[in-house]
Amino acid sequence: MTHLDQEELEDLSRLAFQRVGVPPEDAGAAARILVGANLLGIDSHGVQRVVPYVSRIRQGVLKANPNIKVLTKSLAVAVVDGDDGLGPVVGYRGLTESIRLASESGIAYVGCLNSNHFGAIAPYLWIGCRQKMICIIGTNAFTTMAPWGGREVKVGNNPIGIGAPRRDGFPFLLDIAMSVASRGKIRAAGERGESIPEGWGANPEGNPTTDPIAALKGFVLPFGGHKGYGLALAIDILSGVLTGGAFATQVKSMFQQAGESQHVAHFFITINPAMILGLEAYYDQMESFCALIKDTKRARANAPVLLPGEIEEGTFEERSASGIPLDEDLCETLRALARGISADSNTTL
Amino acid sequence: MTHLDQEELEDLSRLAFQRVGVPPEDAGAAARILVGANLLGIDSHGVQRVVPYVSRIRQGVLKANPNIKVLTKSLAVAVVDGDDGLGPVVGYRGLTESIRLASESGIAYVGCLNSNHFGAIAPYLWIGCRQKMICIIGTNAFTTMAPWGGREVKVGNNPIGIGAPRRDGFPFLLDIAMSVASRGKIRAAGERGESIPEGWGANPEGNPTTDPIAALKGFVLPFGGHKGYGLALAIDILSGVLTGGAFATQVKSMFQQAGESQHVAHFFITINPAMILGLEAYYDQMESFCALIKDTKRARANAPVLLPGEIEEGTFEERSASGIPLDEDLCETLRALARGISADSNTTL
Repeated sequence: MTHLDQEELEDLSRLAFQRVGVPPEDAGAAARILVGANLLGIDSHGVQRVVPYVSRIRQGVLKANPNIKVLTKSLAVAVVDGDDGLGPVVGYRGLTESIRLASESGIAYVGCLNSNHFGAIAPYLWIGCRQKMICIIGTNAFTTMAPWGGREVKVGNNPIGIGAPRRDGFPFLLDIAMSVASRGKIRAAGERGESIPEGWGANPEGNPTTDPIAALKGFVLPFGGHKGYGLALAIDILSGVLTGGAFATQVKSMFQQAGESQHVAHFFITINPAMILGLEAYYDQMESFCALIKDTKRARANAPVLLPGEIEEGTFEERSASGIPLDEDLCETLRALARGISADSNTTL
Repeated sequence: MTHLDQEELEDLSRLAFQRVGVPPEDAGAAARILVGANLLGIDSHGVQRVVPYVSRIRQGVLKANPNIKVLTKSLAVAVVDGDDGLGPVVGYRGLTESIRLASESGIAYVGCLNSNHFGAIAPYLWIGCRQKMICIIGTNAFTTMAPWGGREVKVGNNPIGIGAPRRDGFPFLLDIAMSVASRGKIRAAGERGESIPEGWGANPEGNPTTDPIAALKGFVLPFGGHKGYGLALAIDILSGVLTGGAFATQVKSMFQQAGESQHVAHFFITINPAMILGLEAYYDQMESFCALIKDTKRARANAPVLLPGEIEEGTFEERSASGIPLDEDLCETLRALARGISADSNTTL
């Protein structure tokens, strides 16, 4: 493991994107989102994604310099056509447009279509909260779940995030996917030869299973049963359906269908507390609310009462101070990509 | 059991409210919301609530004729001060105001404070969808859950609902509370002398329990663990915190604190697909989406693949045609209240 500070890692990521033709501003936005995920401790959605993203641009599946169109529909609503650009570039555009609209209108909806995998939701929430906006953000995703009562994979593990700014420091930050456990966790159990807990997955016949191999061939199960399933569909309605984009099985995998456009869709609802309650009164309410929750007797002496975002806050503080831990190989790959050396072939691009 | 048709039940409920001084229009709105819950099969939040609502007005805890103020903050945002009126009256006002704003702006947020228990969310979604709006509706509620890691009851089982209109007929309708199971279900298990499944509740020390009595003394558990907990807090932020209203333990119970104002807060986000994609294009997308999900092989031959709202649709069709089944006693009580006879004392009010 090596440690890189935020700035250095953003530079490397930005350069890697620029080397394959992404304009500097877009490359900077994508770097900021990915490094943001690392800072918050979500390494699976951090800079390791630079590698497949760059590779997809090199293969021509993803456009380095897309013609992103912001179609403003009203003072509070816009649709962003991502033209198959990098997901974090399209998403960042959606977020900033939503903030711009909500700063005047009090609330805004911006939907994005023809986008790609856009990373984790938490960094978008964090940026939105720094702009003093309450954010509700969601995206559809490659399908890994079955409809309720079904045994075919047709529903994405569509995550949703809700963030709310606080007066000082770190925001309230909730970023959740709809499955009980990710396919990654199930795969890891399989590699260790372990069984998985009941409720994580079902086999291809639609029956619950504790066998990770069967669950990977079948599908993951939604948290809260029909509740998580219903939320996954609602998030797709707000993303793919409402934008006129792709939904459900129309969304492709960046790995299993590596040669195809993903057609991911996202949505960004931002709400401006300054126009509703006034910023200071809102902060007073928010601080009282958080204090009331935190001031609760613990169930276990060694485990604190937690607000959503507090674990991320701890990681953020630590990594802002001491750098972001990175696998040596990944670090070398990023340095190579930043110099314009292809990760796959070791040749200059 | 007796059966009353929708119109008759709405008339009885409306008259019961009018007899205690609720203006006709408000009484009609409240009746519509409560009977709407019965039509959708949510009897626990239907006309049986007329009895405690009327009783609270008679006791002077709730105002029959409140001075409800709609404070418009922008073209897309308003706050409704319910002045301690009937929850469904305040909620209906919030919903209609949100629809009015979104019809011009594309999206709207309306928060309500100083309200009371407003019934189920599904009837509001149904009304909003009939007005061709996508609706995201939530409310805070009397607390029954503990913060994550805590053992004191400080979080409401705050429900959220998401509805989306379809071209013909019944909308997509998701209405979920944050607990795995309601206190009512736990109480019922206790009355039958049965234990409850793991994951439903915890005892006052914060340890999981299968004893319904211990769980009722302790607290109910959120669905999806920290996910349901985080959503419950987010819903309170959008309801109580953002409106300047009451939140968490500041919200009172209509039963346990019968003499006190509840100070419930709600929010109504409505999104106008006609201004985003255009109504027909949106309906095309929505119908394709629903068809894609429905056209899935069943896991069990005798159980259909379900979309959120389909169970409610079946009940709605049946009860629209054959009437709403009502307990004889409840029916008699409603008839008495509609004639101005008090349910408690059998005396004319």
